[in-house]
Amino acid sequence: MNIYTEHLTFQTTQKREIINITEQIKAAMQKSGFHDGFVIVSSLHSNSAIFVNDAEPGLLEDVTEWLERLCPPSDSFKHTGNVESSSEKHLQALLLSHTEVIAFSEGKLELGPWQYIHFAELDGLRPKRVLIKIFGE
Amino acid sequence: MNIYTEHLTFQTTQKREIINITEQIKAAMQKSGFHDGFVIVSSLHSNSAIFVNDAEPGLLEDVTEWLERLCPPSDSFKHTGNVESSSEKHLQALLLSHTEVIAFSEGKLELGPWQYIHFAELDGLRPKRVLIKIFGE
Amino acid sequence: MNIYTEHLTFQTTQKREIINITEQIKAAMQKSGFHDGFVIVSSLHSNSAIFVNDAEPGLLEDVTEWLERLCPPSDSFKHTGNVESSSEKHLQALLLSHTEVIAFSEGKLELGPWQYIHFAELDGLRPKRVLIKIFGE
Repeated sequence: MNIYTEHLTFQTTQKREIINITEQIKAAMQKSGFHDGFVIVSSLHSNSAIFVNDAEPGLLEDVTEWLERLCPPSDSFKHTGNVESSSEKHLQALLLSHTEVIAFSEGKLELGPWQYIHFAELDGLRPKRVLIKIFGE
Repeated sequence: MNIYTEHLTFQTTQKREIINITEQIKAAMQKSGFHDGFVIVSSLHSNSAIFVNDAEPGLLEDVTEWLERLCPPSDSFKHTGNVESSSEKHLQALLLSHTEVIAFSEGKLELGPWQYIHFAELDGLRPKRVLIKIFGE
Repeated sequence: MNIYTEHLTFQTTQKREIINITEQIKAAMQKSGFHDGFVIVSSLHSNSAIFVNDAEPGLLEDVTEWLERLCPPSDSFKHTGNVESSSEKHLQALLLSHTEVIAFSEGKLELGPWQYIHFAELDGLRPKRVLIKIFGE
């Protein structure tokens, strides 16, 4: 089994943005030259996340509204570490995933026809890094 | 490290159903012939999920009630992609996981005595696919 | 690719406790001797979890309050399996993750500067096991 590593950087133009990164993952898989294996996709920040689901724009609006409904801002938060990032962004990242693992077989990602890989930026307007690490043969 | 790939198909008789698939995962691990490694188990649909927890029937009812409480239907959803599948099913799938990674050592899954692998069908009555991909030696 | 396996045991002095285990994961990675690969970290219990996020104490209090708000105790729970463990602990574990996969490159975990690996004990005061399984070269 061989290993291929790549880092992406995203700087969104809005605080909150969901970016479909499926094509970048496919391109990295092709660069790796592997046909059978898996990809680890990780957000390298505590206030952004990775998730796999449909990419239909209306659904992504529903996802955003849902994240805000289950993890709203609060005056009673204890987190004082960082003025740039308040607790609700961290909780929204926890509700999604810091990492997704996606397998591939015969040169194709093991995703259904309505499944896409997303980078969920919850506190953007600055450079944020995503790891793509591929193991395969 | 070697690779073994298998796909399962489930067609539930109810819209919503939680199926304990631990025995199928164990059987695939035995077919692989590997003793040390890990399994990637993925739902290949955006409105079903994989999760690891206890399989006690009362608890699974509590999980279902909880998914519906945190992700209820809503008239204000923007998702218009598919009449068969409304946003709450996608959100419930996000609340669980699209993929679980389970390690195994000395021919046994690394699960505690009350941990089982489940396929959570959130929008069933039609064929749904699950990937089992095993890496090991 | 080679494999290194280790189990940790935690016995907390409180029912609920979040423990930063990043140093233990780093130590295991160094013992493995691998420089490039990934770690599977799994809770081997249905009422504890693993998550990756900031370790600032105020934030961890916010995480705890959030888990209890989204998964409160309820008189209508159906789970009857175990007097020691009620459903809300299982639901809180599902809200987080049973497993995290963390990659490493050039001998360093692929985590951002504010990302740490945590063991979230939701029903402690007794020995609980965590798996560390490392694949690399």
